[in-house]
Amino acid sequence: MTNMKKEAIVLLSGGIDSTTCLALAVEKYGAEKVFALSVYYGQKHVKEMQAAEKVARYYGVLRQEINLAGVYHWSDCPLLAHSDKPIKHETYAEQLKELGGTGTVTTYVPFRNGLLLSYSAAIAISVGASAIYYGAHADDAAGRAYPGCTPEFVKAMDTAIYEGSGLICHLYAPLLDLNKAGVVKEGLQLGAPYALTWSCYEGGDIPCGVCGTCRDRAAAFAANGVPDPAREA
Amino acid sequence: MTNMKKEAIVLLSGGIDSTTCLALAVEKYGAEKVFALSVYYGQKHVKEMQAAEKVARYYGVLRQEINLAGVYHWSDCPLLAHSDKPIKHETYAEQLKELGGTGTVTTYVPFRNGLLLSYSAAIAISVGASAIYYGAHADDAAGRAYPGCTPEFVKAMDTAIYEGSGLICHLYAPLLDLNKAGVVKEGLQLGAPYALTWSCYEGGDIPCGVCGTCRDRAAAFAANGVPDPAREA
Repeated sequence: MTNMKKEAIVLLSGGIDSTTCLALAVEKYGAEKVFALSVYYGQKHVKEMQAAEKVARYYGVLRQEINLAGVYHWSDCPLLAHSDKPIKHETYAEQLKELGGTGTVTTYVPFRNGLLLSYSAAIAISVGASAIYYGAHADDAAGRAYPGCTPEFVKAMDTAIYEGSGLICHLYAPLLDLNKAGVVKEGLQLGAPYALTWSCYEGGDIPCGVCGTCRDRAAAFAANGVPDPAREA
Repeated sequence: MTNMKKEAIVLLSGGIDSTTCLALAVEKYGAEKVFALSVYYGQKHVKEMQAAEKVARYYGVLRQEINLAGVYHWSDCPLLAHSDKPIKHETYAEQLKELGGTGTVTTYVPFRNGLLLSYSAAIAISVGASAIYYGAHADDAAGRAYPGCTPEFVKAMDTAIYEGSGLICHLYAPLLDLNKAGVVKEGLQLGAPYALTWSCYEGGDIPCGVCGTCRDRAAAFAANGVPDPAREA
């Protein structure tokens, strides 16, 4: 068997946050010690996967793509290919306001992040890695819009992974205290290849510009006073 | 879509512990409100799966079988079909003694239980269930032989599932304070169909009788002063 010894696993969706995480992990461990994991869970499109592939190639890190689509057979989350529900055009902040300040947004996929992190832990232990990098940040956590991004969840999941791995593996969420603009700032400093990333929930040729994640992404680049390189390409 | 509203998900491997958990969940919620989940993760044999199917049919609960074999591509745990490592014949207590009182036994599958519980949580939220039943017990937890069975792991995983589900779902490990003999005692009182269960790590026509789990199972029935109905069949 090839020497698969790695130091860190990075959950890589192909968006801004996970690409920034990958940049941090590569800076710390070197590309050859980093393993990127991308998960197809039944999304409406594969643009994210294509972006993740490009980002992983850019850094020269090994990447595995896994298919967990079956798990969401009974979910009607609008991000899923079998759902007829429309994807809302409000920003997360606007959706949270509608929810009265706290509550899960419609694009929450049931325990997806917990499942992906557990999968990452299984692989991490198998390849001797003791770190899992995860791109949760403060904007996603606000008001539990995405409950799998809160500090409370990250802390509990870290303990579960540490205990469940026999005191070997830890979960790191290096962007947890940053908002989206702060994440972009961090990534720009690291030279993260944002031109290769994909955030839009829709699967068009170019980002729709109006879904919640497109609008939040645009605001984050605007806050940094730079154009989004993926919109210029 | 069929009305899939459930109350509890039970991780059902087809062994003594998970069958006892299923008995408890059915007693509390009724068979029609319970969903059993069985996971193939690359084991050397499918005897457990066949046992899980029989147990689920006995109770008349809906059961889904999922395949996560790909996740353990890089693991050489001896329970996996692609591993050449032999399965040890010592009891867990004997293996722990060899490890100096604490440490992971060779049949630990990397973060398997965390992964299975996360998968359960994803399904639980999708079908409206707020409880996940899990058959971890004290003998498996002792000395962190199986770190995914310790009270520390269960507590952290419960918090992760509760937080990550948007404060909806809890993890229950009703056997956590019992040893294997106590689990069997509980199941006998509930009339659990132990004759249908399978524990042996090997995949022969009848249980090998010498692997760690066979020996622990035999001791648990002996402690209750009853024959193992699966050995009489």
